[in-house]
Amino acid sequence: MSQPDQGSAEDRLIARYFRPLAKHPGALGLGDDAAVLTPPAGCDLVLTTDGIIAGVHVFPDDEPGSIGRKALRMNLSDLAAKGAKPLGFLLALSLPGGISDSWLAAFATGLGKDAEAYGCPLLGGDTDRTPGPLSVSISAFGAVPHGKMVRRSTAKPGDLVVATGTIGDASLGLLLRRDKALAKYWKQSEAMIAHLKQRYLLPEPRNALADAVRQHATAAMDVSDGLAGDLAKLCRASGISAEIDVARVPFSGAVRAAIAAQPAIIETALTGGDDYEIVLTLAPEKLTAFRAAAQAAGVAVSEIGRVTAGAGTRFVRDGKLLAFAQPSYSHF
Amino acid sequence: MSQPDQGSAEDRLIARYFRPLAKHPGALGLGDDAAVLTPPAGCDLVLTTDGIIAGVHVFPDDEPGSIGRKALRMNLSDLAAKGAKPLGFLLALSLPGGISDSWLAAFATGLGKDAEAYGCPLLGGDTDRTPGPLSVSISAFGAVPHGKMVRRSTAKPGDLVVATGTIGDASLGLLLRRDKALAKYWKQSEAMIAHLKQRYLLPEPRNALADAVRQHATAAMDVSDGLAGDLAKLCRASGISAEIDVARVPFSGAVRAAIAAQPAIIETALTGGDDYEIVLTLAPEKLTAFRAAAQAAGVAVSEIGRVTAGAGTRFVRDGKLLAFAQPSYSHF
Repeated sequence: MSQPDQGSAEDRLIARYFRPLAKHPGALGLGDDAAVLTPPAGCDLVLTTDGIIAGVHVFPDDEPGSIGRKALRMNLSDLAAKGAKPLGFLLALSLPGGISDSWLAAFATGLGKDAEAYGCPLLGGDTDRTPGPLSVSISAFGAVPHGKMVRRSTAKPGDLVVATGTIGDASLGLLLRRDKALAKYWKQSEAMIAHLKQRYLLPEPRNALADAVRQHATAAMDVSDGLAGDLAKLCRASGISAEIDVARVPFSGAVRAAIAAQPAIIETALTGGDDYEIVLTLAPEKLTAFRAAAQAAGVAVSEIGRVTAGAGTRFVRDGKLLAFAQPSYSHF
Repeated sequence: MSQPDQGSAEDRLIARYFRPLAKHPGALGLGDDAAVLTPPAGCDLVLTTDGIIAGVHVFPDDEPGSIGRKALRMNLSDLAAKGAKPLGFLLALSLPGGISDSWLAAFATGLGKDAEAYGCPLLGGDTDRTPGPLSVSISAFGAVPHGKMVRRSTAKPGDLVVATGTIGDASLGLLLRRDKALAKYWKQSEAMIAHLKQRYLLPEPRNALADAVRQHATAAMDVSDGLAGDLAKLCRASGISAEIDVARVPFSGAVRAAIAAQPAIIETALTGGDDYEIVLTLAPEKLTAFRAAAQAAGVAVSEIGRVTAGAGTRFVRDGKLLAFAQPSYSHF
């Protein structure tokens, strides 16, 4: 008997929902064992992996398109912080039995939209059924000129500390998702509520700023586990200390309203996860040029403190040190 | 308060079990957002991702070192079939609550052993807790001279079809794991039982043959979902047909004994998964050189059939076509 020319259920699912995303010629239409990528001349590759498990990193009933987009954006944020230009990604998808065709279609549409918007095409993947929750694991690849990846370990005493965007929105948005009554307690307008929830649902990775980070920063990292904890990691890696002026930390109007109503929530804003901003250090004489580049890229940046010799981080407000009960957020 | 200089539970777990595996300088000791890799000059990158979910691809109580090794070897097998030399891998690990330190230590030791043996170091990773089963997702990277990745889609009428190693051991090993009584029915010696089970537990990817595949094959793919189904995929991708002489398909003594006792089990051997061999096509005049290279690499190879014009695959035994109820294995 000639074998039927149809492929497996997995093949059909891939062809239907994911082949349209595989626009890079090296993806070979997702029809081979592997993808092939010709590295840009004179460049190093930057490789990262990050993922989402439903019920851990997202709510299982989140809009499927936003789950796909968030998984990709978490990885894009790492590339941005390293000063890398996205090249593409691999997708490992574990699907529970109850996933419908319309869920998959929406997931793939959202993912494809961001792959297009960020210039980061799907190169290949692996799809399995799981008895567990939905899991979306992505490995993303970027390029930097040879030797120019921005590291965590290269901050220097005397550098300024700069943060992009706003801090704490996503962690407060997560609390709001869990307890609607907080909106009233925090004196949030409808627009503020929508802002905080949206920042949790869909990060805004700062890839527009990647070139400026690479050109000006001495060190940088993605803020995904809270500003305080991630800055502590950067200090540890660089063997330096940092003092942060809490009054300069960029908070949105929604977070400022919440802190005014519940002062202790500032700890959640500074230590909670899912910001997907960049914290970076740079020499003071670079600040003006960096600010100009950030303005051109449409990304807000704030100078929030200074690198010093020593170890550990100090968050100072009104001349006093802030003490955190739990300095870093961890899904783990 | 200066923040405590200790990192999160995830950081400590990574430092303890996985940092020792991150021997590549570009892994940055797993202490940065991303890894950095300088691509070998004149080479393309080959990228693949494959993973294991406990209870789907392995038994949850399999020796943890073999789970780590199998996950890496599944990916190494893809690189081998594409003619690529391994460069490194990213690991995304989802751990259920009950995982012990000794489990993790054994998992990392097994994984590290193979990373070393195959020259494929850990470059980076992501670790999460999951309410679901253990999941190990790996993305692996290799290098081929520019333009030389071996594809599925380039087989030509007149080519010979060649398979490496032996076919069907793992799928029969899986059946034996599920039903011990089969050993007696299949007239298996203790050595045969051990062989079949071991072939399921721990594939032997043919990376030693990657250069020879790249130099001689017109097309190749990794046999992971059964010889019949995977060869059908290669035929589909190449727009050709293949006729296989079943008498020439390489079966181990254990599989031959099982087929002698239960003739119908030949379908499982030819269509079952987890072989992690390579099926390739080559011009007849290349066979002698390929055989010599395979012998030098210590890998058995068997000429099993011929590529023809047309579509579909034909498995012929004693002049008759074999009909398969289910031509391809799918975990999906």
